[in-house]
Amino acid sequence: MSTSQHITAPLEFYFDFLSPFGYFASLRIDALAARHGRVVAWKPILLGITVLKVMGMKPIFDTPLKGAYIRHEAERYLRLHGLKLKRALVTPTMNPLPAARLFAWLSEHLPHHAKPFARAAYDAYWQGNIDICTPETLAPVARTAGIPDAEFARALKDPEAAALLRNAVDGAIAKGVFGSPFFIVDDEPFFGVDKLEHLDAWLAKAPYAVAPHDVTAV
Amino acid sequence: MSTSQHITAPLEFYFDFLSPFGYFASLRIDALAARHGRVVAWKPILLGITVLKVMGMKPIFDTPLKGAYIRHEAERYLRLHGLKLKRALVTPTMNPLPAARLFAWLSEHLPHHAKPFARAAYDAYWQGNIDICTPETLAPVARTAGIPDAEFARALKDPEAAALLRNAVDGAIAKGVFGSPFFIVDDEPFFGVDKLEHLDAWLAKAPYAVAPHDVTAV
Repeated sequence: MSTSQHITAPLEFYFDFLSPFGYFASLRIDALAARHGRVVAWKPILLGITVLKVMGMKPIFDTPLKGAYIRHEAERYLRLHGLKLKRALVTPTMNPLPAARLFAWLSEHLPHHAKPFARAAYDAYWQGNIDICTPETLAPVARTAGIPDAEFARALKDPEAAALLRNAVDGAIAKGVFGSPFFIVDDEPFFGVDKLEHLDAWLAKAPYAVAPHDVTAV
Repeated sequence: MSTSQHITAPLEFYFDFLSPFGYFASLRIDALAARHGRVVAWKPILLGITVLKVMGMKPIFDTPLKGAYIRHEAERYLRLHGLKLKRALVTPTMNPLPAARLFAWLSEHLPHHAKPFARAAYDAYWQGNIDICTPETLAPVARTAGIPDAEFARALKDPEAAALLRNAVDGAIAKGVFGSPFFIVDDEPFFGVDKLEHLDAWLAKAPYAVAPHDVTAV
């Protein structure tokens, strides 16, 4: 994968509002990228399409053995990072489409409001325990993100929002994105919040030049 | 999960000979644990049981989207650690039972030869590109591990080997182990070779006391 021609391209951060690890990554990715002079393009995906339909897997919290482990890992992450969630770590029942469509529409039409909206939506969902799937629940989120009420109403009515999200998800799949969080920088893919340290090392040095301190295998 | 009563118990390392990431972990785990004054108990699992049967998933290299990503990630790991494999990163066709049974038998009857056998088997499989699934292919592996020919012959004939492996795999599943590599230390589980740094931090300090350098979410 060539990198030279994309060296100043944004780092891509793929996320689903329903993903706790996507939420965790959303709290760190911009600061991490900024330390390397990089900006982050946030991009919506739908785990209901990538994981359930394309990969043919169960929701992670319903997967035998792995579901319990991932819950434990998420709780460990929360303790390590001094975070608390107001929502249980179980398979979500909320429809993520309205929030994801709104985000896709904002990314196209009001790009400066897109990331603030995503942050506010993540906060409402994971910290406010609010199902952000109706105009009534999304309106305060949009207001928090500084989106004028008229633009919010326009976005909700615009059928282009669904097409924009579909294009975004198809584009992500075409790039091999399957989970949340997923990062691509200079064509290099990283999956999972645990990869933020690897991504940090990747951005800091030439590819593959960084060795962990405990390599004994070289 | 309580830790105090197990503080000097061995760190458990679960692995499948067919797992490239298990192989990667096998090259680092003992040195990592030793730096913290801990010993490692190597324990066999069978991904054909945990992943395919219990979890109901496809082999990882055959999983859409994730298969290609994992191959890329393994190749990145190899470059980062200055390693090369003589075997392709595809879904394995070799039967892992003979090697895993032998390892389970050695763990019970010749414990000092078990880990040397596992290292030699991993080396033969991933570096020698040898299908270690017959008496003929396993014999040189056993010899490399210093196992007397008579004991090797005895192990091959002993029906207890299958029962020992079955017990080991059942015991792993009962502890929530599902993948390779998987680590348990003081009842705390860690899945994946990427978790070695987390495990290192866990062993170095009190639980949850270690914060990564780029935490902005606290």
